[in-house]
Amino acid sequence: MDHWISPEPPAFDAQHPLFLCVLSNTDTAKIPGISAAGRLPALIDYTPAGDAELVTLGRTIGNSEPPMTGNSPTPAVMTRAALQLTGMPFMFINCGLRILPQIPLLDVGAHPGGDIRNGQAVQDAGLIYENSVELGRQIRRFSDFVIIGESVPGGTTTAMAVLQALGIDGMVSSSFPKNPMDIKQQVVAQALDRAGIAFGDLLNEPMRAIEYVGDPMMACVSGLVEGLKGTPSILAGGTQMMAVMAIIKFLGIENNISIATTKYVAEDGTASFLETVSALGYAAYVVDPGLDRSKNPGLRMYESGVVKEGVGAGGAMFVAGMMGIGQRELLEKVEEICDQLF
Amino acid sequence: MDHWISPEPPAFDAQHPLFLCVLSNTDTAKIPGISAAGRLPALIDYTPAGDAELVTLGRTIGNSEPPMTGNSPTPAVMTRAALQLTGMPFMFINCGLRILPQIPLLDVGAHPGGDIRNGQAVQDAGLIYENSVELGRQIRRFSDFVIIGESVPGGTTTAMAVLQALGIDGMVSSSFPKNPMDIKQQVVAQALDRAGIAFGDLLNEPMRAIEYVGDPMMACVSGLVEGLKGTPSILAGGTQMMAVMAIIKFLGIENNISIATTKYVAEDGTASFLETVSALGYAAYVVDPGLDRSKNPGLRMYESGVVKEGVGAGGAMFVAGMMGIGQRELLEKVEEICDQLF
Repeated sequence: MDHWISPEPPAFDAQHPLFLCVLSNTDTAKIPGISAAGRLPALIDYTPAGDAELVTLGRTIGNSEPPMTGNSPTPAVMTRAALQLTGMPFMFINCGLRILPQIPLLDVGAHPGGDIRNGQAVQDAGLIYENSVELGRQIRRFSDFVIIGESVPGGTTTAMAVLQALGIDGMVSSSFPKNPMDIKQQVVAQALDRAGIAFGDLLNEPMRAIEYVGDPMMACVSGLVEGLKGTPSILAGGTQMMAVMAIIKFLGIENNISIATTKYVAEDGTASFLETVSALGYAAYVVDPGLDRSKNPGLRMYESGVVKEGVGAGGAMFVAGMMGIGQRELLEKVEEICDQLF
Repeated sequence: MDHWISPEPPAFDAQHPLFLCVLSNTDTAKIPGISAAGRLPALIDYTPAGDAELVTLGRTIGNSEPPMTGNSPTPAVMTRAALQLTGMPFMFINCGLRILPQIPLLDVGAHPGGDIRNGQAVQDAGLIYENSVELGRQIRRFSDFVIIGESVPGGTTTAMAVLQALGIDGMVSSSFPKNPMDIKQQVVAQALDRAGIAFGDLLNEPMRAIEYVGDPMMACVSGLVEGLKGTPSILAGGTQMMAVMAIIKFLGIENNISIATTKYVAEDGTASFLETVSALGYAAYVVDPGLDRSKNPGLRMYESGVVKEGVGAGGAMFVAGMMGIGQRELLEKVEEICDQLF
């Protein structure tokens, strides 16, 4: 194995890996300046659906343009590359979408998330959680290794709000090269204020933190991990999944989980990914897809901090690496997918 | 193995069986006299959702009463018994539901079916089919044996209409003890007339038969079987699945499929299950759950021809039998489930 994943992952002995990706829309994503997902604000809602279509079909159906941030393609291109090279089965989960992709989906009965400034972010967190537990119980019967990613525009802001409600001083990342930390912190402060929550108030009530200031994806991933008990699971994402890790820990769910993300999140000086994951007591794996050497300028922009992570890209590539696929092979596949797209 | 399945099934060597059940609502089911599913007409729409909740949770959430036909419980009690005894994983597929069960679901993007007398029964058969093909492709990567059942009230009428459009003179079964063949034939004649189709006209266009006079489940199951290519699959049902078998054959889909049902369908003198399946060139397995010896009068009524089959009960019990579970053990589990329900 070449050294594009650190630390070096354990030997891969799973027979039946499965990649899941949880898709949600929220009104928080539409607060101006919050999300860079989608070239135009009107496209934000389509981003998760577009990501799912791109991974599944290699093209988008609901819109002529695939999800972009500036001139950089969605990390879904890396997810597709890793899934194609490994042949791993995958499923997308509708967890409160406003726009449905034209592919088969799993559905855990969620409504789209609200605007956290209104103090009621997720209506039905308990139902989403219970449905996801049941789903996890079925999945563990046929899979022995599960990777769980997400595509939730605006999700780093809900992640920051939940982390503060849980009393964790972790900083979150952004799909913008310049993290709009002022706007996020202002939105989070308003949300916590409206919900009457001070820093750390919900340390013992993580489900209430989701309900007040989180997003539907968080309830789904937590429930999946509970239902998957006994099956090793990788949370595939950056600071959004770091917040889910905190929720899982504070819910007392005991499972064999670790987190895998891209080096663009791990090296983001405005975030505190590795420190926070380490403080929570879990292992983190960092994947370097080598985009600096890409011939595609939009992919090279990832090195400047655009996009960074999403659609479980880091985790999908992590498994590809575990299965023996090298960085160069992965990068060539990513470029091939981009060439077909544009 | 005791002899409650005939002919004796082949040795069971699958490592990863999976049970799927496709759920649809249609307006055809609401034509007076068509369906006995649901004690009251208003409950017809809830029947598939209630079946799915019962199998998954052992109780219904959306309504205080589980789906009943007269005093007989839904065949979902047999499905649950077989799934519990085998530990097989299972998933329900939303294929055009009006009422959603409160469980995790797969979703193939279908709308509820119309009233076939209007000549446009399924709006989006092509999309349902394509999504189901993609779903089948994912599933075959982690399952080596798939059982596909259905819960579609009114489905024997759409089955009859499709069979006639395909030029098959097969007779369909009914959840009523006295098959309302006059009403069904009248509805089917109206539907074919409105669509401008004579007997056998759509022999070469089975997807058009689904669109004009079928139901959404048919497009889903056909697509699944196409996507599952190479993976042995059991169609679990009575004359509705027999119609799907005809569609699959006429679409030219080549897969290793057979059909499994209860003896109540196979022995129904008003239907032509075994003859038609045999004429289509597929194997049929018949399961006798021994309900004549049940202490539960509602279950004993199955012997008089009430309900007969549904929710993949015959196929789920068939697999239980293949896995070495005996008739008595199954029956005791069914009775235990009924005792907990009522």
